[in-house]
Amino acid sequence: MTEPPFRRVVVIGAGLMGTSVALALRRYGVEVLLEDADPGNLRVAVSLGAGVPVTPAEALANNTADSADLVVVGVPPSALGTVIADALTRFPGAAVTDLGSVKAAALAGTRAHASTQAGLDRYVGGHPMAGSEQSGPLAARADLFDGRAWAVTPHADSRPDAVAAVERLARTCGAFPVQLSPGEHDEAVALVSHLPQVASTVVAGLLTTAAEGHLVLAGQGLRDVTRIAGGDPELWTQILSANAEPVARLLHEAADNLHRVAHTLEKRDAAEAGLADLRTSLERGATGVRRLPGKHGARPEAFSPVPVLLPDQPGELARLFADVGAAGVNIEDVRIDHSPNTPAGLVELWVHEDAVPALLEALAHHGWDVHG
Amino acid sequence: MTEPPFRRVVVIGAGLMGTSVALALRRYGVEVLLEDADPGNLRVAVSLGAGVPVTPAEALANNTADSADLVVVGVPPSALGTVIADALTRFPGAAVTDLGSVKAAALAGTRAHASTQAGLDRYVGGHPMAGSEQSGPLAARADLFDGRAWAVTPHADSRPDAVAAVERLARTCGAFPVQLSPGEHDEAVALVSHLPQVASTVVAGLLTTAAEGHLVLAGQGLRDVTRIAGGDPELWTQILSANAEPVARLLHEAADNLHRVAHTLEKRDAAEAGLADLRTSLERGATGVRRLPGKHGARPEAFSPVPVLLPDQPGELARLFADVGAAGVNIEDVRIDHSPNTPAGLVELWVHEDAVPALLEALAHHGWDVHG
Repeated sequence: MTEPPFRRVVVIGAGLMGTSVALALRRYGVEVLLEDADPGNLRVAVSLGAGVPVTPAEALANNTADSADLVVVGVPPSALGTVIADALTRFPGAAVTDLGSVKAAALAGTRAHASTQAGLDRYVGGHPMAGSEQSGPLAARADLFDGRAWAVTPHADSRPDAVAAVERLARTCGAFPVQLSPGEHDEAVALVSHLPQVASTVVAGLLTTAAEGHLVLAGQGLRDVTRIAGGDPELWTQILSANAEPVARLLHEAADNLHRVAHTLEKRDAAEAGLADLRTSLERGATGVRRLPGKHGARPEAFSPVPVLLPDQPGELARLFADVGAAGVNIEDVRIDHSPNTPAGLVELWVHEDAVPALLEALAHHGWDVHG
Repeated sequence: MTEPPFRRVVVIGAGLMGTSVALALRRYGVEVLLEDADPGNLRVAVSLGAGVPVTPAEALANNTADSADLVVVGVPPSALGTVIADALTRFPGAAVTDLGSVKAAALAGTRAHASTQAGLDRYVGGHPMAGSEQSGPLAARADLFDGRAWAVTPHADSRPDAVAAVERLARTCGAFPVQLSPGEHDEAVALVSHLPQVASTVVAGLLTTAAEGHLVLAGQGLRDVTRIAGGDPELWTQILSANAEPVARLLHEAADNLHRVAHTLEKRDAAEAGLADLRTSLERGATGVRRLPGKHGARPEAFSPVPVLLPDQPGELARLFADVGAAGVNIEDVRIDHSPNTPAGLVELWVHEDAVPALLEALAHHGWDVHG
C-alpha cells in the first residue's frame, strides 16, 4: 500500500461538502477527525464511515494540534471567517483551507478574526465545483468531486507548501485544481453558479401560483432548469450576499435580456425583424452552451466529424453503431448533414480527434462508405 | 399476439418527434407510413426501423387514403396549419393529430387552410411533453414518451372517436393523456416550457463573453440550467412567436423578479430586511420546485416520513439501507431531523404512503428503533 496523501486531516463541519471530502480521503486510508456543532450531523457522518468524531477540546488534548497536516473547513459562509481564523490558531502546524462558495469574503472574514496575521500564510481558499440541491451528510458521496474543477485561491501571502497541500487535497478527492485569485474566482462563480441559481429560483418561484392541472404538463426541461432552485434558501442567502456586487450586475443584465425578448414577442406582428432579433437571442444561447467544457475540463473543440453514407435499408444505423462500438471508438455526437449539395443519408459521426484514425480504419474494414 | 392499437398510421414529418412516435408504434406492430420533404431525414428514420417511406402521391395511390386510421403531423410550427388541413383532405377516413408545442395557433392555422370546415371535426391537437435539446430522427427513441404527460386538446367540434384515437396514441407511446382546451394548454406551456426555455437561453447567452478560464469552473448546476438552451433556435423562434402573449407576460414577470433580487443584493448593507427579502425569494423557488409532480404525474404529497433512531456506530446507515432494500421498499428521500427536541441520529426515511406498513414491519423485524 502506498503512503496516504495526508497523515491526519481535521474536517470542521460534517455537512454535505465536509462529509464528502472526509469520505473521499478515507478511500486512501487518511485518518480523519470530524468536528460539528450539530450532533445529528456528526452521528450520520460517522455512521457513513467518514471518520472519528471529536469535540474541539478532544482535538487539542489528543495531540492533534501537532500532528494534523491539513484542516478543511466546511461551514456555512457566514461562519467561515471565524472558524478559519480559529483553526489557524488551534492547529499551528497545519495548512488550512475551506470549501466555501465565495472566496474574497472568506479571506476578509479570516483576516478580521485572526488573532495574529502571521498565521494567515497557512490559509489557502478552496472551492470544489460540485454539490447537490440536497444538503447535509446524508447526501454526501465519496465520488462527489470526481472529474470536477476545484478552485484553489491563494492570497498574496499564502505559502507554497500550503497551496501544494490544497491542490493535493483536490486531486485526492478526484478533482482537478484550478488556481485563481479570490477576486477572479468570485467573478467566475457569479456567472457559472450564482446567476444560474437565481435564474432557476425565479422560474421555480413562478410555479408557486400555477394551477395544478398545468404543472402536470411539466417535462424534463423544466425539471432540469429548476433542480438547483431546490437548494437550501438559508445557505444561498449567505452565498449571494457574500458575492453581491458581481451577482447583482449579472442579474440586471439577464433581466434586461428577458425584457428584451418579451418586447420582441409583443411586437412580432410588426415585422420579420422582430423574429430575427428573437432568433439571434436563441442562437446566442445555443452558442453559449457549446462553450461549456466537457468532463475534466476537455474543450468541446477537440471533437471532429467523420461523414458516412448510409445505405437505404432498415437496420443500417444499428449496424454502423455496432461496428464502431466493436472498434472501441466512443461516439460523442451524431448529426445528419442537410447541406443542399450532399447526398441523402449522409451522417456525421463526431469523435475525439485522437480517435479519428481508429474510426476510419474500422469503417474501411467493415466496408462503410466514408464520404469525402 | 393481441390486435395492434391501430391498423395503419401515417406520420408526416420524420424529425425527432415524428420518428419517435413511429418507433413507439412499431413496437406494437402498427404499420407506419412515413412522409418527409427531406430525403435525409426519411432515410435515417427508415434505417432506424420507423416505417415505410412514401411520397404523398404513393400514399394516395397505395389506397392509404381509405385505410389509415390516424395521421400524425410532426412538422415545424409555421407549417402545421397547412399540413394538417392538407391531411384532413387527403385522408378523409382518418383522425388527424399533430405534435406541435402551441395549440391555439395550430388550430387557427388549420381552420384558415382547410378546404372545407366539415373535416375539422376529425382534427384533435396533441402535444407530448417530451423532447430533447437535439433534433432530427437521429435523436429519436421509442421510449421518448414513457411516463410523460401528453396534452390532448380537442376543439369545440372535435368528434369523440377522434379524441379517443389520440388518447390511444398517447397511451400506446407510453404516455398518459391530459385533456385541456387549446387556450388552456398554451397558458400552461408558457409557464412549464416556454419560460424555462427563454430563461435557460438568457443564462447561456451570458456565457458567450465569459473568459475561458472562468468557464472551467462550470458545474452540473449550470449544465442543467442551460441544457435546453442548446435547442434548435429556428424551432424555438417559431414556438415562442406562436405563443407570444402569455410568454411575454411571464418573461416580464421573471425579469422584474431578477431585478428585484439584484436590488436587494445591492442594498444588503442597509438592513437585515434585505436578507429577509432575498431568503423569501429563494424559499419561494424551493417551494415551486416541490410542486412539480413525479413520474406519471404522481403527487409529491403521496410520500410519508418514517423516523428511525440511528445507533452511534460506523456502518449503521449502510445496514439500515440494506435492511430496507431487502424488504423491497423504495426510499424516495432521506432527511436528518434537526428539531431541537429530537435526539441526535434521528433519520427520516420518506417512502410512498402505501409502503409505510411494509417498512415498519421490516424495521421492527431487524430491531430498528422507530421513533414516535
